[in-house]
Amino acid sequence: MNTESPLLLTLDLGGTFAFALNGALTAIRVARLDVVGVVTLGMVTALGGGIVRDILIDSLPPATFSDWRYLSVAAAGSLLAFAFGWRLTRLAGPILVLDAAGLSLFAVTGASKALDFGMGAGQAVILGVITAVGGGTLRDVLTGRVPVVLRSELYAIPALLAATVVVVTDRNGVYGAPAALGAAVLCFGVRMLGVRYHLNAPSPPGMHGEGTGT
Amino acid sequence: MNTESPLLLTLDLGGTFAFALNGALTAIRVARLDVVGVVTLGMVTALGGGIVRDILIDSLPPATFSDWRYLSVAAAGSLLAFAFGWRLTRLAGPILVLDAAGLSLFAVTGASKALDFGMGAGQAVILGVITAVGGGTLRDVLTGRVPVVLRSELYAIPALLAATVVVVTDRNGVYGAPAALGAAVLCFGVRMLGVRYHLNAPSPPGMHGEGTGT
Amino acid sequence: MNTESPLLLTLDLGGTFAFALNGALTAIRVARLDVVGVVTLGMVTALGGGIVRDILIDSLPPATFSDWRYLSVAAAGSLLAFAFGWRLTRLAGPILVLDAAGLSLFAVTGASKALDFGMGAGQAVILGVITAVGGGTLRDVLTGRVPVVLRSELYAIPALLAATVVVVTDRNGVYGAPAALGAAVLCFGVRMLGVRYHLNAPSPPGMHGEGTGT
Repeated sequence: MNTESPLLLTLDLGGTFAFALNGALTAIRVARLDVVGVVTLGMVTALGGGIVRDILIDSLPPATFSDWRYLSVAAAGSLLAFAFGWRLTRLAGPILVLDAAGLSLFAVTGASKALDFGMGAGQAVILGVITAVGGGTLRDVLTGRVPVVLRSELYAIPALLAATVVVVTDRNGVYGAPAALGAAVLCFGVRMLGVRYHLNAPSPPGMHGEGTGT
Repeated sequence: MNTESPLLLTLDLGGTFAFALNGALTAIRVARLDVVGVVTLGMVTALGGGIVRDILIDSLPPATFSDWRYLSVAAAGSLLAFAFGWRLTRLAGPILVLDAAGLSLFAVTGASKALDFGMGAGQAVILGVITAVGGGTLRDVLTGRVPVVLRSELYAIPALLAATVVVVTDRNGVYGAPAALGAAVLCFGVRMLGVRYHLNAPSPPGMHGEGTGT
Repeated sequence: MNTESPLLLTLDLGGTFAFALNGALTAIRVARLDVVGVVTLGMVTALGGGIVRDILIDSLPPATFSDWRYLSVAAAGSLLAFAFGWRLTRLAGPILVLDAAGLSLFAVTGASKALDFGMGAGQAVILGVITAVGGGTLRDVLTGRVPVVLRSELYAIPALLAATVVVVTDRNGVYGAPAALGAAVLCFGVRMLGVRYHLNAPSPPGMHGEGTGT
């Protein structure tokens, strides 16, 4: 139904796989859920961002449901994490890396698909960010946590950067695999730097030192 | 607007009524809400799953809004629960049974309506599950609890069974009232057995005894 | 894309601005978020109700995305609150007033737009309420609180009153700026009275004194 470009499809499936692993490992670590809970959280995390994007750009039914490849990749990632996740003695690291990978890929595909559907430049950037943070937000709400996009070091900003690169290169006619990968790598790098050095965006003026101390 | 079959409509309204009672009684038990809170939670629980289904299959506006019968049944169930729920000295039992009834009916109608809208077999099964668990998930998120689909004994699996029966019988040309009711009864029975004997789906390998013990 | 009336657009942008300030100030007060968190929560609160409305009436993509004015107003309100919110020594008061303003304006625009899209009278009233409470509900879920619509003094009821005024005046051919403003003022007044005197809708019979005491 959606005649997607191979580039968009590949990146989208990559992000789906990364978020499926991430969501399923989160379920194992945070909530110690059974196989249904693990697969459910994996699939919601993997498919949530794309579903929200497709609703907002009026591409219904979402690609998830008209294209079996998304469902398969999301289910496979979730089951893999269920089967082998317990071997990982420390889950926090892989969870963070996989989340950053999904964030980066979905920021690119979200902005790119929004442009394909004729959205304006600003709208495409915002849809990139929404696609990137959507699945993780659902994951966090369902497990009773404040979403990472609201509380974490540099989470929405790298997604915003990547989506902006997509839109700017597209408007200048040079969008393609190199630009898409470059944007994703940029997002991933900034996100991981933020995690590594606990960088945060500025807090409200007059509140320095209060944000974490009280 | 939606020319639904009488069978689908009947089962759908039955599920709507069961979930309206369930959501409203949950509001009374868990949150001790006033009449607006009780009716709101009842209606969200009753209508949530069908709305999510109709968004995903691109049947907008949702049947809820183009057909006054859904709104009426959801409001009537919520108000009934508000008026008489306090007479029930123990609410946990009725809440569980009503939830299982709504789950069973919506798994059938979700899969059936998805097939009517031309979705593939796998998609229809998944949409059946989403319809079945959608309202309860919204109910739990709004009252600050981890959704039952993530934490409970055999919740998504009976819905998956019922939706699969619907799709298999439909593909073989024998779907009708008997198959629909059989699928719903199967789901209800498995769900209640799970509740009765605290059955759970398998936990991740290597974590036996940890899920509840730590 | 949406050829909205100037009246609808003006009230809708006013509600968007009020909810953007409200959401951003809530982020500062409740969660002490950084600039991204503050702007995100401001924009979700400002745009959430309208997005849910536009999905349900099948007006996709939502006005938010086809019309840059919504995004600009939501972003401006959020950034203003981020820049100056810390000067307010007491945030609770402004937060309540802005929430009531957004509630009132969105109840009117939600019902009005639903009528423009051919929804029935009952549906338009309910869509008015959903539009009015949608953004605040997302705000509360994302910050881990039970939504105000479920727990607070007279929150949904004033929105219901305003939406009903819109529908009744529209059906009698006298809807216009005076009726719209009158409905919004009515909602705002009832809501603020409810806050001032801690009025609540009736609790379930047989539970008097329990709702707050236990």
